[in-house]
Amino acid sequence: MIKKLLVANRGEIAVRIIRTCKEMGIKTVAIYSQADKDSLHRYMADESICIGPNNISKSYNNIDNIIYLAIKTKCDAIHPGFGFLSENSSFARKCEENNLIFIGPKFEQIDKMGDKSTARETMIKAGVPVVLGSKGVITDVNDAIDIAKEIGYPILIKASSGGGGKGMRIVYNEDELKANFDMAKGEALSSFGNDEMYLEKYIENPRHIEVQVFGDKYGNVVHFGDRDCSMQRRNQKVIEESLSHYLDEGIRKKLYEAAVKAAKSINYIGAGTVEFIVDKDKNFYFIEMNTRIQVEHPITEMITGIDLIKLQILIASNEKIPYSQENIKFNGHAIECRINAEDPFDNFRPSPGRIDSIHVPGGLGVRFDSFVYGGYTIPPIYDSMIGKLICWGKNRNECISRMKRALDELIVEGVKTNIEFQKMLIESDAFVKDEHHTKFIENEFLKN
Amino acid sequence: MIKKLLVANRGEIAVRIIRTCKEMGIKTVAIYSQADKDSLHRYMADESICIGPNNISKSYNNIDNIIYLAIKTKCDAIHPGFGFLSENSSFARKCEENNLIFIGPKFEQIDKMGDKSTARETMIKAGVPVVLGSKGVITDVNDAIDIAKEIGYPILIKASSGGGGKGMRIVYNEDELKANFDMAKGEALSSFGNDEMYLEKYIENPRHIEVQVFGDKYGNVVHFGDRDCSMQRRNQKVIEESLSHYLDEGIRKKLYEAAVKAAKSINYIGAGTVEFIVDKDKNFYFIEMNTRIQVEHPITEMITGIDLIKLQILIASNEKIPYSQENIKFNGHAIECRINAEDPFDNFRPSPGRIDSIHVPGGLGVRFDSFVYGGYTIPPIYDSMIGKLICWGKNRNECISRMKRALDELIVEGVKTNIEFQKMLIESDAFVKDEHHTKFIENEFLKN
Repeated sequence: MIKKLLVANRGEIAVRIIRTCKEMGIKTVAIYSQADKDSLHRYMADESICIGPNNISKSYNNIDNIIYLAIKTKCDAIHPGFGFLSENSSFARKCEENNLIFIGPKFEQIDKMGDKSTARETMIKAGVPVVLGSKGVITDVNDAIDIAKEIGYPILIKASSGGGGKGMRIVYNEDELKANFDMAKGEALSSFGNDEMYLEKYIENPRHIEVQVFGDKYGNVVHFGDRDCSMQRRNQKVIEESLSHYLDEGIRKKLYEAAVKAAKSINYIGAGTVEFIVDKDKNFYFIEMNTRIQVEHPITEMITGIDLIKLQILIASNEKIPYSQENIKFNGHAIECRINAEDPFDNFRPSPGRIDSIHVPGGLGVRFDSFVYGGYTIPPIYDSMIGKLICWGKNRNECISRMKRALDELIVEGVKTNIEFQKMLIESDAFVKDEHHTKFIENEFLKN
Repeated sequence: MIKKLLVANRGEIAVRIIRTCKEMGIKTVAIYSQADKDSLHRYMADESICIGPNNISKSYNNIDNIIYLAIKTKCDAIHPGFGFLSENSSFARKCEENNLIFIGPKFEQIDKMGDKSTARETMIKAGVPVVLGSKGVITDVNDAIDIAKEIGYPILIKASSGGGGKGMRIVYNEDELKANFDMAKGEALSSFGNDEMYLEKYIENPRHIEVQVFGDKYGNVVHFGDRDCSMQRRNQKVIEESLSHYLDEGIRKKLYEAAVKAAKSINYIGAGTVEFIVDKDKNFYFIEMNTRIQVEHPITEMITGIDLIKLQILIASNEKIPYSQENIKFNGHAIECRINAEDPFDNFRPSPGRIDSIHVPGGLGVRFDSFVYGGYTIPPIYDSMIGKLICWGKNRNECISRMKRALDELIVEGVKTNIEFQKMLIESDAFVKDEHHTKFIENEFLKN
């Protein structure tokens, strides 16, 4: 059993991990950058050590220093949280080489899922649906036209080495394809020095639905239901809920089977999330697998009653998953609203600075996971999430009413936050009727 | 359906009621005494009105003013919370006379359970076990000796008009009875001007276990499990948990049957709590029935997922209880620690004053119900409870670990609190092993 654990993270997830360690009787070591000297996680841990200056590569991403400190403080394990080094296979490998338990999957599994084309091929082999696309790269528009016929419109033209929307076009028919293919190619060449293209079926206004899976070292894989994370802004999740109301039970069953199959196909160990997009006809397609705990894991905890960080630690301690699939029951409905220090009415500009006071909601079914406190100054160099407001209800309607009430009670003074914006989203017709999608905020909500 | 409700209370329970009303879309009117002008409940309500000066009889117990205000603000219902007018049958009757829905039972039911000897007789008739005692009053020591033989020692000698321990003696045999009866009688005469005595079987170091029941206007009565409130100081509950681990399933079943029988025998409507003491041999005896919501109701909510204030409001709105007994499932374990502004290391002296800051714990299974905030000044004239820390766990052990962790995180600056004392209790051998009883704090814990 793990006796002492280094938390290789900051903010809310560091606090979250320390909470579970305390409950399990595991000693904790916190690391913090100079900017985080007042962060709650360092006060909650049994020991805390400054890991370096504000620069992330010199602090939270500093593999050698972190491993050195874990050894020096006699830790037997490291929890990477999410972000930072959580999906860095070199870090996982170096932990292993230094006899430190990395709370996560094997480094080979991180590698396999980290490379998007390997992940895609792995899923195709495992029989998990992926978005239809060209097999190899295309340079000729006539090849593109032939392949597009097979896939069906709308089609996404993408530069092979693309990113940030460069060399990318959505086309709805052959004429548009002809008109755009060479332009996209030219853009790719000038942007990336490479004009290899590929085609992908374009899913319009999809839902984002993901499945929480866990594997242990004995080949067992179970799922903990799904999370609907369709309320996003610029591909950042804003509101998550569990279980998704969008799926009917037949499709839900198939989705779970696909996720478990995906995890089993790579003998997955630990917590993982298999992400899918779901189209209007409820067809689902694998996007990627995250080989770590997710920001939105609390909503799964609320409907299962199972501490997922505890489960990660148990699995890393060579224990079997103590639940059979049948024993994992889903009770009620949970929603998480990410609370950010930002100004939604000024293009979501981050609003770091001093929190003069914070008042946290209470009552049945309300949970607030955070790392801030009255008098704390949010440093300007990390992301703007200051907390996660999570509500549980017997059903989705009760949960929405509770979230409205809890958002009303939550008061953060001193910085701008998205609390009012979250209230508007929660009360929006699209959300209440469960008709939103991943492009809803940008393309509909903010335009009205 | 109720549209607007006056909350005839203050502090934590007023906040609690307003939370549910908000979730149900019911408008609220708060009343507050001059001392409570900064209390959170008045800021959370849709309207708030000063009901009078600090004197309780002129404010929270001022029946005529409260009813006048309810009518004036066009409320259709009044929720009395606990304490104050919650078990005042005249208030319930006056509400009825003024066409205001009193969220509670019929005034006749309050009367029946409020008079302890009527309650006892009602229970005996319903076949619910009560503590053995003399049928009528006794004035002669020889009669006392005869009756004591029937009941069996130890015996509690009580003054009929007694209170506060005056005219009360515990005796373990006939000699002690002879030596004490007349002394107790003399004390009763000088204290109350009445020397009528009665005898009761004395249950040593009992557990206090209560059953939450609800009845509706259609004759349905269900229970919501039990609560073990054996951790008390001077008959004040300090820690409560649900379900009790002290009962085995056979006895638990009988206890629930007795509680439901008790409620059915008076056609009980609304939320009620049937309180029992349980002796070392797990025999249980009715003590009293509280005809209102209890302080410790959240632990029942945590293991059932059911909002009990909402259920009270639904029943008062003529709805049927929407759960059959079989549908009320108990999931995991919940513990509540009452957080008081008092100094346990100075004889629990109340510690009113300004709360400079408060930091509330978060994470899975943690709930903090309160009415205070950073900068709030606790007035010296009401009780010292400032909040209720409630934890849920998959089982009692997980729940205890979580409560320890949550107590560690809870920080209240500016006033003295019992947080450290609660930690000591939660970690005590007697509590962990579930061997405590209602006299444990005074007779054992504080003596070591």
